[in-house]
Amino acid sequence: MLKLDKIYDAKNILSKIARVTNLVESKFLSTTNHVYLKSENLQLTGSFKLRGAYYKIAKLSQEEKNNGVIACSAGNHAQGVALASRENGIKATIFIPSTAPISKVEATKSYGADVKLIDGVYDDAYNAAIEFQKETNGTFIHPFNDIDVIAGQGTIALEVFEQLNAIDAIVVPIGGGGLISGIAATVKQLKPSCKVYGVQAEKAGSMYESLKQNKRVELHSVATFADGTAVKLPGELTFEFCKNYVDEIITVSEDEIATAVLTLMEKEKMVAEGAGALSVAAVLFNKIPLQGKNVVCVVSGGNIDVNILSRVINRGLLKTGRLSNLTVELLDKPGQLRDVSTIIAELGANVIRVRHNQGGEGTDINDCYLKISMETRDFNHFNQVKQALIDKGYVILSSAE
Amino acid sequence: MLKLDKIYDAKNILSKIARVTNLVESKFLSTTNHVYLKSENLQLTGSFKLRGAYYKIAKLSQEEKNNGVIACSAGNHAQGVALASRENGIKATIFIPSTAPISKVEATKSYGADVKLIDGVYDDAYNAAIEFQKETNGTFIHPFNDIDVIAGQGTIALEVFEQLNAIDAIVVPIGGGGLISGIAATVKQLKPSCKVYGVQAEKAGSMYESLKQNKRVELHSVATFADGTAVKLPGELTFEFCKNYVDEIITVSEDEIATAVLTLMEKEKMVAEGAGALSVAAVLFNKIPLQGKNVVCVVSGGNIDVNILSRVINRGLLKTGRLSNLTVELLDKPGQLRDVSTIIAELGANVIRVRHNQGGEGTDINDCYLKISMETRDFNHFNQVKQALIDKGYVILSSAE
Repeated sequence: MLKLDKIYDAKNILSKIARVTNLVESKFLSTTNHVYLKSENLQLTGSFKLRGAYYKIAKLSQEEKNNGVIACSAGNHAQGVALASRENGIKATIFIPSTAPISKVEATKSYGADVKLIDGVYDDAYNAAIEFQKETNGTFIHPFNDIDVIAGQGTIALEVFEQLNAIDAIVVPIGGGGLISGIAATVKQLKPSCKVYGVQAEKAGSMYESLKQNKRVELHSVATFADGTAVKLPGELTFEFCKNYVDEIITVSEDEIATAVLTLMEKEKMVAEGAGALSVAAVLFNKIPLQGKNVVCVVSGGNIDVNILSRVINRGLLKTGRLSNLTVELLDKPGQLRDVSTIIAELGANVIRVRHNQGGEGTDINDCYLKISMETRDFNHFNQVKQALIDKGYVILSSAE
Repeated sequence: MLKLDKIYDAKNILSKIARVTNLVESKFLSTTNHVYLKSENLQLTGSFKLRGAYYKIAKLSQEEKNNGVIACSAGNHAQGVALASRENGIKATIFIPSTAPISKVEATKSYGADVKLIDGVYDDAYNAAIEFQKETNGTFIHPFNDIDVIAGQGTIALEVFEQLNAIDAIVVPIGGGGLISGIAATVKQLKPSCKVYGVQAEKAGSMYESLKQNKRVELHSVATFADGTAVKLPGELTFEFCKNYVDEIITVSEDEIATAVLTLMEKEKMVAEGAGALSVAAVLFNKIPLQGKNVVCVVSGGNIDVNILSRVINRGLLKTGRLSNLTVELLDKPGQLRDVSTIIAELGANVIRVRHNQGGEGTDINDCYLKISMETRDFNHFNQVKQALIDKGYVILSSAE
């Protein structure tokens, strides 16, 4: 269906532009095995999408190139098509729903694409793109359901085998399925004994459901933190590839994805987006039997809005007891803020924010309360602080976010 | 003073353990030149410190190894010594001031070192370490003022020249000066035409002051966000190396360092600590005349507490107008929240938090106010939103954090 020849051709063409991203062992994830990260988050444009888009565009005829290309995406595909077009010297028109994050729009513009912001959601932008395609006769670049795009993504597997031959399994995020289709087709032709696992967010498991029911299943809602994989309906092509080449698809929860993003930051000093960290989430939470094996996790992208990153960090810290919130009721008399601060400091917790409110809802009109955010070592440490306050007669109104 | 032979010997010994970290071009930083990042933040233990510590420990005699090693550090040196000791099969005792971040203590323990938490500041921990050294006859591993440690750090320059020969300049963070001493000694022997620039935080410029006054200068305070480089007094050895081999030392402000950390996250998907990003801060803010050159920035470490990272992100967003706060006074009647939301949405800003308060300080008892946090493109965009609200008759109470 997709011969190695074509994938090697893609590799050759991509050698002009794409980075050969590092394959690096994660000492933290390697507990009972060796886990390697293929860092496509460090690819140009911040994701693997450049590979497929560039190969597709490079293979267009001169006439097609003259008419320009069109894409519809709020994310990594938009940036991949934009840069690939600029490098091929052709015009790209990218349709983006107006609800997309500002940072993604700006990044796409920065690669020289003509960006059309369309009011509404993805489907509205898609319809506008198709209309524009009919008018201009440009080529619509599909984000995943295209054999050239799939071949481009397959080059990742070629690189990985050059970097480490003794691979037992490769774990790959799935949205529409373009990435895993290319990788699985390559792996199963080069080294059939190597397992290929796909990972989806529980809340966006369209390929997972499709394989289960053995037909393409369309989901109604795919709202997930791994927004780069929020695809309602797998492609015909990618569904066939997954059916034929993928060993198993696993799903992970939103909290598992967020923890994986935080782990990659803290332990591997890498910024990954939710979609990019799906593979790591699956390994981190032991969703796949991989003891004693050499495992490659593809970290497929790093384009996460820093606003969201900041929220992921906070959520991760709260969940592990390293950031704690406490609301303490005070009598409205002097010195209480000082007393509470002293108790907390003596136990070695670090106050990072205090809010002092009077007459809020849920309190008596004469009372006031302190809302304190502090850094603690873990939940035990937090409970020590809480108990010390209770022992001194303070009333704790709430101790969660 | 330090011959290439020794640095090659260090490279050979380090080949067993240290990662050959990537040298990758930053497209964002390469505006009028080519800027490459030597990513020692992706080194094992999260910083370059492993190199010097490992080489030093590997060169100890068997008797010295039997007596174990001792270090005093709240940061990267502690982790470097701990891992290097474990890999050499010897005992490490690390003295850490009890005020050190919890995450650094845990990381050092995780490499198997015996950690002694000492009440007080660095000097207290240092004194305890020296006392322990006398009792046990172990070897004290200095973080920078040691020729073997310096040789280990010099291996970075050998690697860089293998990765890209046509280098015109290399930009290096300075704390005690061990890193730049090793790099500069290597560069000036291999390719004397290549410039070596050092970078310090304005608030911790001990080597900068020392070179200026042509003698080692001790600073009273070195409180900086680049805490990995907060060294009050340069070493005798490292001072001599800097005097002989370094072309110039530049200083950068705290805000410039924070912006560099944020830039590395957003544009390069890399987590760097403040100290590690000093080199990038200098290039980003055009502190060095490097037009048309091939420049290498050493990103020396990535061990930043995620709590601090979260604050860096917020500060960076606020400073560039991408996160904005606005307090709007409302009459307490229905529909106003909807109206304000509509105005903001029509201008394409994205509301991420709303707080609705009644009867707060500074407002009339019948009034209430909305405190809105929103994502905007830049300050102009924010001002458009503000003006639109004023035009509709709303009173803006405050528009900053």
